[in-house]
Amino acid sequence: MKLATLKGSERDGRLVIVSRNLKAYKDVSHIAPTLQYALDHWDQIASKLQAVYEQVNKGIDISGPFSEADALAPLPRAYEWVDGSAYINHVVLVRKARGAEPPATLKTDPLVYQGGSSYMLSPRASIPLRDEAWGLDFESEVCVVLGDTPMGTKKQDAAKYIRLVMIANDVSLRNLIPAELEKGFGFFQSKPASAFSPVAVTPDELGNAWQEGRVHLPLVTHYNHEKFGDPDAGREMFFSFYDLVEHITKTRAYTAGTILGSGTVSNEDRNRGSSCLAEKRMIEKIDTGTITTPFMKVGDHVEIEMFDQTGATIFGKISQKVVAY
Amino acid sequence: MKLATLKGSERDGRLVIVSRNLKAYKDVSHIAPTLQYALDHWDQIASKLQAVYEQVNKGIDISGPFSEADALAPLPRAYEWVDGSAYINHVVLVRKARGAEPPATLKTDPLVYQGGSSYMLSPRASIPLRDEAWGLDFESEVCVVLGDTPMGTKKQDAAKYIRLVMIANDVSLRNLIPAELEKGFGFFQSKPASAFSPVAVTPDELGNAWQEGRVHLPLVTHYNHEKFGDPDAGREMFFSFYDLVEHITKTRAYTAGTILGSGTVSNEDRNRGSSCLAEKRMIEKIDTGTITTPFMKVGDHVEIEMFDQTGATIFGKISQKVVAY
Repeated sequence: MKLATLKGSERDGRLVIVSRNLKAYKDVSHIAPTLQYALDHWDQIASKLQAVYEQVNKGIDISGPFSEADALAPLPRAYEWVDGSAYINHVVLVRKARGAEPPATLKTDPLVYQGGSSYMLSPRASIPLRDEAWGLDFESEVCVVLGDTPMGTKKQDAAKYIRLVMIANDVSLRNLIPAELEKGFGFFQSKPASAFSPVAVTPDELGNAWQEGRVHLPLVTHYNHEKFGDPDAGREMFFSFYDLVEHITKTRAYTAGTILGSGTVSNEDRNRGSSCLAEKRMIEKIDTGTITTPFMKVGDHVEIEMFDQTGATIFGKISQKVVAY
Repeated sequence: MKLATLKGSERDGRLVIVSRNLKAYKDVSHIAPTLQYALDHWDQIASKLQAVYEQVNKGIDISGPFSEADALAPLPRAYEWVDGSAYINHVVLVRKARGAEPPATLKTDPLVYQGGSSYMLSPRASIPLRDEAWGLDFESEVCVVLGDTPMGTKKQDAAKYIRLVMIANDVSLRNLIPAELEKGFGFFQSKPASAFSPVAVTPDELGNAWQEGRVHLPLVTHYNHEKFGDPDAGREMFFSFYDLVEHITKTRAYTAGTILGSGTVSNEDRNRGSSCLAEKRMIEKIDTGTITTPFMKVGDHVEIEMFDQTGATIFGKISQKVVAY
């Protein structure tokens, strides 16, 4: 099942069911006015939404053609946005980039941070930037949306709490990070609003690419209209989403609608490119001693997309331009 | 105006207006079903809610007696919970307690962290604890609830975005903090669900105790039924809520319903006691070399309350017992 949020009369938009090929949609406000409502009442209504999805895929009783450009983030605001950093290659490179050691617990204790969730950028929204000196970067990620998830959930039970999968651009302000982490309280100003894909999908839509809490498909990033990277999101995700669920539920519970991110997708194989500028810059430094790639400037453009084994887009495209605020 | 959330048919409860003396309430679901809805539509409905408040204070058209024990957190879940650490005395003592230096920017750059906001504990909810070795502590705080607040807000404009004031128990797991901060991503598992007062009030309810973004009143904490501290929340709040609003809006905007905390209220004058166990423990260590106060155990009890100049409770009482989970 594929779900999206279109502009509605209220700020959380209105839920629609989108056909598998993203060509058509059906308004389902008679079942659930918003995606948050659907997640809050998932056990009661998921089968009704699924029935609509089957009709929409047959072209029966559709509301109209679906346009990715009309989509808001599936959750235009969320109760939690928890972002992991589960790709070891990314952690090692980015820490090197800021002259920091990888944590001693790199392979035993997942890294996660609590992100802001007031405003999630639409997949085609501009990225507002107040100061180019802040070092704007994109980070292409996979994420899941949780149902109500109790404290103390074990990884072997985590699958049943994962309702949806999306992709994201976790926008970062790299030059604000070192001073912020120096203060000891983690990221804050260095993590502005993130953007999410036009549609969110249930894990079954991924077929056998969804395995043990990982999405085994390349995540494709274009930067200023050139291919920037297509690392596989599965194999090198050291901590799976199931591991991350166990980690984050150690001391508290999560409401339906909590978004949990993978962290920047990254492969050791340099031929796969990168999912953020910071990695490319670090590789330049390692190879030549000189960083030549700048951070994003006003007018720059980033696109993030994931395709299934037949080459069809799964989530639609995140496509964002940087604008001066 | 005083507002509270009672149990309703949906998980976000139902909004009620509470009389100034907390004796009576009026259901206002015909105006706003939830506090979040009220905050989302504040400009349209605040005057209607205020009119109800004036009636309730006269005993006209009330729905029934208000019981603090029936109240949920004013926002049972929130889109953001951003917690500052604005009392310098607390920062210095707690960092000493974990053998860390206060940050070099202590007096120029506010400390804030992004908290989890899936589940806000009711004011009388037990604090569920899975392991006493985690070092459970309470932290008595003042907090504000923001309206829609744009990126780039300056402190001189911050007042107009502050809708409500509450008090909170920012529950912390002290023994999980050092290893977590060592990883560089800030607090996560060390910050379980926090609790909030039975009622939230508009700043005008504080009269002249609300000055320049600070609440100039003592915040009273009882621990296991003995007075533990009553530091003044105003004078030594180094960064005001207005400063904190400017800080957090540097790189992004906030949705209505964002909760912004002061951090643990703390005074240099030791006669005022403390608002958390960590401070008391550090003072013991400084004075005698030996920490004698343990962290909270199952069965322990904490109460947090604030009184106006006439001795009347403003927000009602947070009263929580620790239970094994």
